Amino acid sequence: MKICSKESHENQFVVVPPSNMHQQLRSLLESKDGADVAFQVDGEMISAHRSVLAARSSVFKAELFGTMREKAGDPIEIDDIEADVFKSLLHFIYTDSLPETTREDVVIASHLLVAADRYDIERLKLICEEKLCNHIDTKVVAASLALAVQHNCHGLKEACFEFLASPSNLEAMIASDGYQHLKSSCPSALKEFIARFLPVELIAAKDIIMSI
Amino acid sequence: MKICSKESHENQFVVVPPSNMHQQLRSLLESKDGADVAFQVDGEMISAHRSVLAARSSVFKAELFGTMREKAGDPIEIDDIEADVFKSLLHFIYTDSLPETTREDVVIASHLLVAADRYDIERLKLICEEKLCNHIDTKVVAASLALAVQHNCHGLKEACFEFLASPSNLEAMIASDGYQHLKSSCPSALKEFIARFLPVELIAAKDIIMSI
Repeated sequence: MKICSKESHENQFVVVPPSNMHQQLRSLLESKDGADVAFQVDGEMISAHRSVLAARSSVFKAELFGTMREKAGDPIEIDDIEADVFKSLLHFIYTDSLPETTREDVVIASHLLVAADRYDIERLKLICEEKLCNHIDTKVVAASLALAVQHNCHGLKEACFEFLASPSNLEAMIASDGYQHLKSSCPSALKEFIARFLPVELIAAKDIIMSI
Repeated sequence: MKICSKESHENQFVVVPPSNMHQQLRSLLESKDGADVAFQVDGEMISAHRSVLAARSSVFKAELFGTMREKAGDPIEIDDIEADVFKSLLHFIYTDSLPETTREDVVIASHLLVAADRYDIERLKLICEEKLCNHIDTKVVAASLALAVQHNCHGLKEACFEFLASPSNLEAMIASDGYQHLKSSCPSALKEFIARFLPVELIAAKDIIMSI
């Protein structure tokens, strides 16, 4: 009769199972029963429930219940998020977890971070930020740093800075594809990095950064 | 930076807080934002959200989305549940927990068990059943046993039987206010108890039960 869950508790006669709310909301999303809002994403129609979206996102709340309220029945067009990313966003909204398939995908984590920031879903944003922190390498660090600056991710920015504090990582980043985008879109991040992290003896690397 | 929660996890740069879904759904319930269904309970109007109710209760789902669907806008009359109990039921539906004030109230637990059974909310039913199991005494055991039989609560029935296996508890129960109701409403439970628990030497008590 013992259930191996920290959430369950029992006495001699009754076993109370752990919370099943997330599974029930997931079933609601997947069944589309009673769905009262539809989104048009990448040509795909995706149904959802206004109440759940509004409970979990102040942006959805304003869009669905506020003065910006869409005309009932008309699908809402989403043109800045891919369908798979939007579906992962909805999965998180209903279950507070990511779908299995996206858990290891760092590219989707980047897109999902942008979507989480767009819809003000702070915990999802932090989960994506944490995942990107754990997957920094010389190929992605320029893109991750740009993303961190553009979406106010303090932790991710600091993790990128720490990675770049190694001279070999810094040089590899400067040679990477993402560097020009970083330099043009977030010059202040590079200046902050130089001021805080670059030792005087790395003047050569500093010169490279300042001159390019 | 450390958060003392088993649900939280962290790396050096990012701390992901524990799930806040229950608090957000609680805020939705309390704010009534976007409420799309109203209940008339004890003369009180109580608002809620169809999607959340349907996700959590197959009975609400059938009532709100099925062929029994109420006419939109008309409040649904609830005449067999008290307003406080109905509010606790909604609190549980939105948060998977009981409101603080009802946690120690065994009388409300009885009413809430009936409501949970009515709306097919199994985990709440088990929580109420567990609470009643932990508060069996000679005054309430007859009522708790009747409740257990009427609502198919196997654990609670067994807990009552074990309590009544003590001769002094059995005699006190027979003298209690609830005994006549138990005897008239659930005679099969008394017969089962006698068959399974009453030792031959307790023939006097057995005679009392059989003769009254």
